[in-house]
Amino acid sequence: MSDIQRFDVGARMSDMAVHNGVAYLAGQVASDATKDAQAQTADVLAQVDALLARAGTDKSRILMAQIFLADIADFAAMNAAWDAWVASGHCPPRATVEARLAKPEWKVEIVVKAAV
Amino acid sequence: MSDIQRFDVGARMSDMAVHNGVAYLAGQVASDATKDAQAQTADVLAQVDALLARAGTDKSRILMAQIFLADIADFAAMNAAWDAWVASGHCPPRATVEARLAKPEWKVEIVVKAAV
Amino acid sequence: MSDIQRFDVGARMSDMAVHNGVAYLAGQVASDATKDAQAQTADVLAQVDALLARAGTDKSRILMAQIFLADIADFAAMNAAWDAWVASGHCPPRATVEARLAKPEWKVEIVVKAAV
Repeated sequence: MSDIQRFDVGARMSDMAVHNGVAYLAGQVASDATKDAQAQTADVLAQVDALLARAGTDKSRILMAQIFLADIADFAAMNAAWDAWVASGHCPPRATVEARLAKPEWKVEIVVKAAV
Repeated sequence: MSDIQRFDVGARMSDMAVHNGVAYLAGQVASDATKDAQAQTADVLAQVDALLARAGTDKSRILMAQIFLADIADFAAMNAAWDAWVASGHCPPRATVEARLAKPEWKVEIVVKAAV
Repeated sequence: MSDIQRFDVGARMSDMAVHNGVAYLAGQVASDATKDAQAQTADVLAQVDALLARAGTDKSRILMAQIFLADIADFAAMNAAWDAWVASGHCPPRATVEARLAKPEWKVEIVVKAAV
């Protein structure tokens, strides 16, 4: 329906839905899963940037980020990439927990909601 | 308050809240937890359908689905039920992670937000 | 930007964002992590109350609560604190799963969205 805009609609899921001024991103994982946790996080955040751009918004307008780490021991490595990326003065609410992901080589998955 | 509509309000939680054009569903689990992962997923999705109908919406208007699997090895079984159910052309953003659930016999819990 | 109000903006995250009538709270954890699961939950819920008050709202207007327990065996202890706190007649949708948290002494983390 016209009040929901979907991006990259596949047979199982889409990458993003925009409705009523809010962009809901699918959980993003690294495109290159051979990387370590810090590099996978940077990879994920680059994908978040790209999706937000397609919705006409950016990381300064994130409303909430839910971070899943396959191993909570990677918390510092994830934060190294996050801290280098996050928009100064516009850091969003966030929650980070440990959860195994759909592929064992994935170390981090991030779910973002943003204002458009 | 009148701008929030709640459904099945109990002493601990309710099943759904609708506010400003968005329905927030409680995590749904199988009504029959003796079933396998695929059948539990179909059971959960039928409950999602029923709740969405009560809010005057349906699965073609889901904005985000967060899926928790007690054992990520059930990813394919969950997807078999999901793929048979999801609204073609309107597949929502989704994230799937492993997390133990409140009852050991529950294999899947799904949290949905949808446009009303 | 002026349509997003952020609270306690740090170098990594903020505690809350308010946008378009919805408050998005960061995952809240106990300020005193030496407490048991029930007391940590009461501690977390007091922090939720404080944040909601700063957004001009309260627990009767929660739209969704995502609860992460480091050990799902603490489900009853968490519920004891929750049931004593939740706004009768306005209980929100909720989902509870097990997930290890960023610090091993944290037993519960709660993520709340509320109408303002």
